[in-house]
Amino acid sequence: MATIKDVAKAAGVSVATVSRVINKSPKASASSIEAVTKAMSELGYRPNAAARALVNQSTETMGVLVSDVSDPFFGTLVKAVDMVAHQNGKHVLIGNGYHNEEGERQAIELLINNRCDALVIHSKALSDAELIEFAKEAKGMVLINRHIPEIGHRCISLDNFKGAYLATEFLIRSGHRHIACIASNHPIEDVDQRIDGYKAALADNGIVLSEDYIDYGAPSLEGGEAAMTNLLTKSIPITGVVGYNDYMAAGALSILDENGIAIPDQMSIVGFDDGLIARYMKPRLTTVRYPISMMAEKAALLALQLSRDEAINPDISTRYSPTMVKRDSVKPC
Amino acid sequence: MATIKDVAKAAGVSVATVSRVINKSPKASASSIEAVTKAMSELGYRPNAAARALVNQSTETMGVLVSDVSDPFFGTLVKAVDMVAHQNGKHVLIGNGYHNEEGERQAIELLINNRCDALVIHSKALSDAELIEFAKEAKGMVLINRHIPEIGHRCISLDNFKGAYLATEFLIRSGHRHIACIASNHPIEDVDQRIDGYKAALADNGIVLSEDYIDYGAPSLEGGEAAMTNLLTKSIPITGVVGYNDYMAAGALSILDENGIAIPDQMSIVGFDDGLIARYMKPRLTTVRYPISMMAEKAALLALQLSRDEAINPDISTRYSPTMVKRDSVKPC
Repeated sequence: MATIKDVAKAAGVSVATVSRVINKSPKASASSIEAVTKAMSELGYRPNAAARALVNQSTETMGVLVSDVSDPFFGTLVKAVDMVAHQNGKHVLIGNGYHNEEGERQAIELLINNRCDALVIHSKALSDAELIEFAKEAKGMVLINRHIPEIGHRCISLDNFKGAYLATEFLIRSGHRHIACIASNHPIEDVDQRIDGYKAALADNGIVLSEDYIDYGAPSLEGGEAAMTNLLTKSIPITGVVGYNDYMAAGALSILDENGIAIPDQMSIVGFDDGLIARYMKPRLTTVRYPISMMAEKAALLALQLSRDEAINPDISTRYSPTMVKRDSVKPC
Repeated sequence: MATIKDVAKAAGVSVATVSRVINKSPKASASSIEAVTKAMSELGYRPNAAARALVNQSTETMGVLVSDVSDPFFGTLVKAVDMVAHQNGKHVLIGNGYHNEEGERQAIELLINNRCDALVIHSKALSDAELIEFAKEAKGMVLINRHIPEIGHRCISLDNFKGAYLATEFLIRSGHRHIACIASNHPIEDVDQRIDGYKAALADNGIVLSEDYIDYGAPSLEGGEAAMTNLLTKSIPITGVVGYNDYMAAGALSILDENGIAIPDQMSIVGFDDGLIARYMKPRLTTVRYPISMMAEKAALLALQLSRDEAINPDISTRYSPTMVKRDSVKPC
């Protein structure tokens, strides 16, 4: 591969001049730009990004941490960050936390060590204190799907309480009063917030249900199957179910189907996320929309602003609201 | 942020010694490793990855190009590459080609400019000639889901012909003879290979059908809906459909459902990919499995071997076979 010295020789200029052209210095003359560009092209020279990063003190790289990129929820998040990066002449280094503390820690350290200018971090396993430390160190770091009050202006989050409240209230307005809640068994704040939203909607409508109406499982198809099976086993009257996410709702639907309970005729179900699968299910799933693409775009833009020390408008909302998506899995009771 | 000089001062050693410790040089003494590690920790020093990349002539980065990371097919591909990267102490820079020539070209140049040691490239829009040129320049570059004979040992591909042949033959063995083919309208080799496989299975079983039995659409839910609508409009007898992918099969299923044609009782459907949605559909989709995770893992390992100039065993297969996944969308005719 050709070196910068080869380019300088071919262009008849100094190495410093080649460097000025590569780094788009205003000091580079028109004639040197022409000669250097021509020589680079003829020799097939590629500027070394690592060398440029050292000179410019910037890697032109944005970092993104997700739990698992094969889940389309996270794929959509990464895509939105990539779009913003692309529009800003940057590219994306990706880290996978794989739902555990050490995985998330290692991935964030890696992104920081690689001098990512801006970071969009989806962390559920690390403590508030540790994330605050990372945020101090990396000025362009923004958290997504998490709210830590001390760094609230750098957190883009969803109102999980409101989402579950909306889903439960929608069933109540459709005449349902015996509403079960299928929750995730992951120890993350989202779960508590959504259960609180479910309970608040019941309470605000004068509905009292025992804790039996809440069951837990992994936030997956299989977890939804397990939780729905448990609910059926308890022999409590149920006409509606709010699911922690679309996958769990799909698992519940599958178990109800196997047990000859027709949806929505005999049981109504609401999901959460409005992910890829919701519109492929039958009946098509009524669900709560998680605006992850919009939130990730916002997080990426905010991270870039912070990395450039630009002033942030404190009035801009960092808290997003979920909305209902009405399809075919709910019927009046 | 602390510099390498600060670390050297605090540890009471030279900058060169700190550098040896950071780069895990065998020349670093046990006492200097201890002193430097302690000083780095106390000062919160992070080695600059760009500086290390220049020194080591290696970025410890693998690059991966996909069409669209929000599609779980590509998310699964990226995850498999990330797993291999992680096991080898590397991290992943991601490029999105967004299904167009210029997007793919820019993304590959970016990955090469960033000195990715190893590259897994999913390119459908660039010509064989251009990809061969890129492969010459980047010794650790491997193509996935594409076969170019001149660099065949660096291509990991699927036997698309066989996949479509299997799907069609499966319907024929179930007694179907009027089998339609829903194809993608993207101008890529996969489409021709799968149509050829469909035609070959018909011919091998003495079935003659007109070209009317093949219809086209975008490789999406909407494209499948459009193609199935066209097929119904033609008023030709059909009892089975082979879809270009699971999304198109889902679109066909949706249109048949709207037209009161029951699946699998009145019409059988086979998809392709065995992607995320196949098991969420109702009936659950009988489909052809695309072993993308296994293929991506193989591609990543091969790319690493090539980047290290390791000898490649020429007998190892780079061509993968699809297999049938029998679920509930096919019934004997």
